[in-house]
Amino acid sequence: MEQIRRTKIVELLKSTEFGKQANVKGWVRTKRGNKQVNFIALNDGSCIHNIQIVVDVPNFDEALLKRITTGAAVSINGEITESTGSGQKVEIMAKEIEVMGDCDPEKYPIQPKKHTLEFLRENAHLRYRTNTFGAIARIRHAMIFAVHEFYTKKGFVNIHTPIITASDAEGAGEMFKVTTLDYDNMPRTEEGAIDYSQDFFGKATNLTVSGQLEGELAALAMGEIYTFGPTFRAENSNTSRHLAEFWMIEPEMAFYDLDDNMDLAEEFLKYLIKYALDNCMDDLEFLSKRLQEEEKNKKADERSMELIEKLQFVLANDFIRLPYTEAIEVLKNSKPNKKGKFKYPIDGFGSDLQSEHERYLVEKHFKKPVILTDYPKDIKAFYMKQNDDGKTVRAMDVLFPQIGEIIGGSQREEDYDKLVYRMEEMDIPAEEMWWYLDTRRFGSVVHSGFGLGFERLMLFVTGMGNIRDVIPFPRTPKTAEF
Amino acid sequence: MEQIRRTKIVELLKSTEFGKQANVKGWVRTKRGNKQVNFIALNDGSCIHNIQIVVDVPNFDEALLKRITTGAAVSINGEITESTGSGQKVEIMAKEIEVMGDCDPEKYPIQPKKHTLEFLRENAHLRYRTNTFGAIARIRHAMIFAVHEFYTKKGFVNIHTPIITASDAEGAGEMFKVTTLDYDNMPRTEEGAIDYSQDFFGKATNLTVSGQLEGELAALAMGEIYTFGPTFRAENSNTSRHLAEFWMIEPEMAFYDLDDNMDLAEEFLKYLIKYALDNCMDDLEFLSKRLQEEEKNKKADERSMELIEKLQFVLANDFIRLPYTEAIEVLKNSKPNKKGKFKYPIDGFGSDLQSEHERYLVEKHFKKPVILTDYPKDIKAFYMKQNDDGKTVRAMDVLFPQIGEIIGGSQREEDYDKLVYRMEEMDIPAEEMWWYLDTRRFGSVVHSGFGLGFERLMLFVTGMGNIRDVIPFPRTPKTAEF
Repeated sequence: MEQIRRTKIVELLKSTEFGKQANVKGWVRTKRGNKQVNFIALNDGSCIHNIQIVVDVPNFDEALLKRITTGAAVSINGEITESTGSGQKVEIMAKEIEVMGDCDPEKYPIQPKKHTLEFLRENAHLRYRTNTFGAIARIRHAMIFAVHEFYTKKGFVNIHTPIITASDAEGAGEMFKVTTLDYDNMPRTEEGAIDYSQDFFGKATNLTVSGQLEGELAALAMGEIYTFGPTFRAENSNTSRHLAEFWMIEPEMAFYDLDDNMDLAEEFLKYLIKYALDNCMDDLEFLSKRLQEEEKNKKADERSMELIEKLQFVLANDFIRLPYTEAIEVLKNSKPNKKGKFKYPIDGFGSDLQSEHERYLVEKHFKKPVILTDYPKDIKAFYMKQNDDGKTVRAMDVLFPQIGEIIGGSQREEDYDKLVYRMEEMDIPAEEMWWYLDTRRFGSVVHSGFGLGFERLMLFVTGMGNIRDVIPFPRTPKTAEF
Repeated sequence: MEQIRRTKIVELLKSTEFGKQANVKGWVRTKRGNKQVNFIALNDGSCIHNIQIVVDVPNFDEALLKRITTGAAVSINGEITESTGSGQKVEIMAKEIEVMGDCDPEKYPIQPKKHTLEFLRENAHLRYRTNTFGAIARIRHAMIFAVHEFYTKKGFVNIHTPIITASDAEGAGEMFKVTTLDYDNMPRTEEGAIDYSQDFFGKATNLTVSGQLEGELAALAMGEIYTFGPTFRAENSNTSRHLAEFWMIEPEMAFYDLDDNMDLAEEFLKYLIKYALDNCMDDLEFLSKRLQEEEKNKKADERSMELIEKLQFVLANDFIRLPYTEAIEVLKNSKPNKKGKFKYPIDGFGSDLQSEHERYLVEKHFKKPVILTDYPKDIKAFYMKQNDDGKTVRAMDVLFPQIGEIIGGSQREEDYDKLVYRMEEMDIPAEEMWWYLDTRRFGSVVHSGFGLGFERLMLFVTGMGNIRDVIPFPRTPKTAEF
């Protein structure tokens, strides 16, 4: 076979060099045709679209053509041709065909038909080869890059906070233990407790639940920083919204108060969404159609807003900013609360908001993204800045349609005495947190930050319904495949 | 104090708006002067340089000025003024000063003097506030962004491969165990073994040593992908070159043979180094001076090449490409081998190369970065493509001055039968790897990839000597502070 440099399908489909010879490599999605001509739909992952390969059957060996089945990898030399069909504008007239990797159609799990998402989860090693998961992977990449681009343009510094940690300070949730101790011969102290001094790190260690505390250390020297890394929760939550391993983005900014923090959060989310609209339209259009297809049997008022319209809607509107206390009034007086439709009824100040309440505020009442602020201190973390009312803290949660809380953050308590007092109240051992408290002893400043759950963002941008479908290899209770 | 929007120091130092009022916030590095005028060197992390604040002492409260000590956080309103001194071109004539956070000079660990790197490691929560670690943090960020920019421009897709994994396939090293089991009540099977079915994931799990295998799954659908995430080795190596937790970049490309792989690796490294030279010159110049200062007592021939010169040298030269077998001949006939100067003498084909050999080839013999290829199969991993000689595999290691191996990679074995046979030879359980083998059963193609240890790159670019100083909070045996 003649050696021609490979061109990616995303480039070929934009080409106008009709008559030129090109090489294309990829995986067969479908083959159809008759005894005279075959049409191969070929995909190489570079875009959602396939390129059509036109094969003049009599010019090729029959046995070779038989091997061109769904999933097979082929390399094709041919002529770039203007297509007269209704699909893409460019197709390839095959001159030479090589099968690089066969794919037994009897055994290949990914058939050219609709598979359920559950089936594809069990075959996550192959699901990238479908349109849906190819589109999600490209959008996920675009969102990763957009995160880094946004913060780099603003002069933020990306900090890799530690994954293995000896502190469980935030109390954000159950933690996974990390060890090299031999389970069959656990070393014991004289008192009979596990002797962690013999463990790898010389103490008990866990997987991080958040990089925030270390992020604050960096922000109080570098000014503006962000983390982007994996975080872990060992919670036995088998829902479509929870993962044991997920990625978080946590910016932390010196000299930012809560208003600055809200401004940044809103600007950040809009930047990401605009980036998706500007760079991933082909994939978004595919996912939009997929979602409409999926929901076509639902009643009109139960269907989601069309995906692209929904993304544009968020861009076009200022987020509502509202204190928690006012939100509680809205919820208390809402129809679903009065009619007993909420699973968790709202009785007043102090209630923690559930997803049903968050979505009511966003989807029914305000019909816009909402930022709630100034939550009761008792339902929030120790490090949040205390308001003068003695009851609330300078917290903020950004609530999105479909998702509920997509961002949680706060201004941080920068006053050493108030912070230590609150830690004592909440039984957080100050002596283990000497390094965190040092930032309040030495040149403390007003500062703020927040966390964005990356997979929550992915759910919103792709319109997918299950968080297991927006991360490559999900980790959930009893599942750590691949 | 009048409300003026804060300007970062990196912007102020470029300003020519002399006479304009500005607000600057940051941490005091030093204060000096006399009864008439004080000079405050202020840093906010936005760049290596401080801005000089000129304080007309009689205009300010004495008690306030006393609080301006090293490490204190201050907010200053003042006039942007052209500086006549020898340092920066811009300074600020203070009009109003607020101390946001005091810093007791008796207790603050970071004094305005030279601290040892060991001392700063013990105070890693505050070391960002030094010139050296501020510079390293900004360069680390620049390198992170450059990685994503390089691959995004090329159409690669970033894949978040799992951190918690049930497979120990690569055998790349000792692993950390991850569990939620209660050490004091370990569940047992009837046979007395640990009953992992009761663990969180229903099986024994570890922290990943590499994302490569999952990366291959994605590459064989998306075409070109890369990972960038934390990886872990539970090895008891207390050296200046090993971490228990470190970050790796692992690109994996369908349709790439070993030559394509080497081309990409060389282009990638040069892109990163050029990015540092183009974007981090102030920080590099500081680190270069630091290194020269550090080495001034060494003999001339023991000193490193000047940092910026070294980076430019790598850019200017093609990397040498050489089969392992030829490198062994060079080493066997080398002076240090003949004179018994190598700790591990080279006797011929089959010897694994140590850092001393790698550095001899790069620093003494070729005086250029070297890519060694076609290593003996017995010292390399099971997944590397076997050469027809039956003895070697299509591996490649990129060797750098000072560092030794900075990249390791290979073409991958795409032939199902050869791969399974090699796994059997090496006692790797094929049944646990069904998902990996599926890629060779269904549309297998030529493909390649490599791994870059991010902290090794950081050592090279910053000229630092200890890997604990180029990651924010290092994890090493018996150390998991902060």
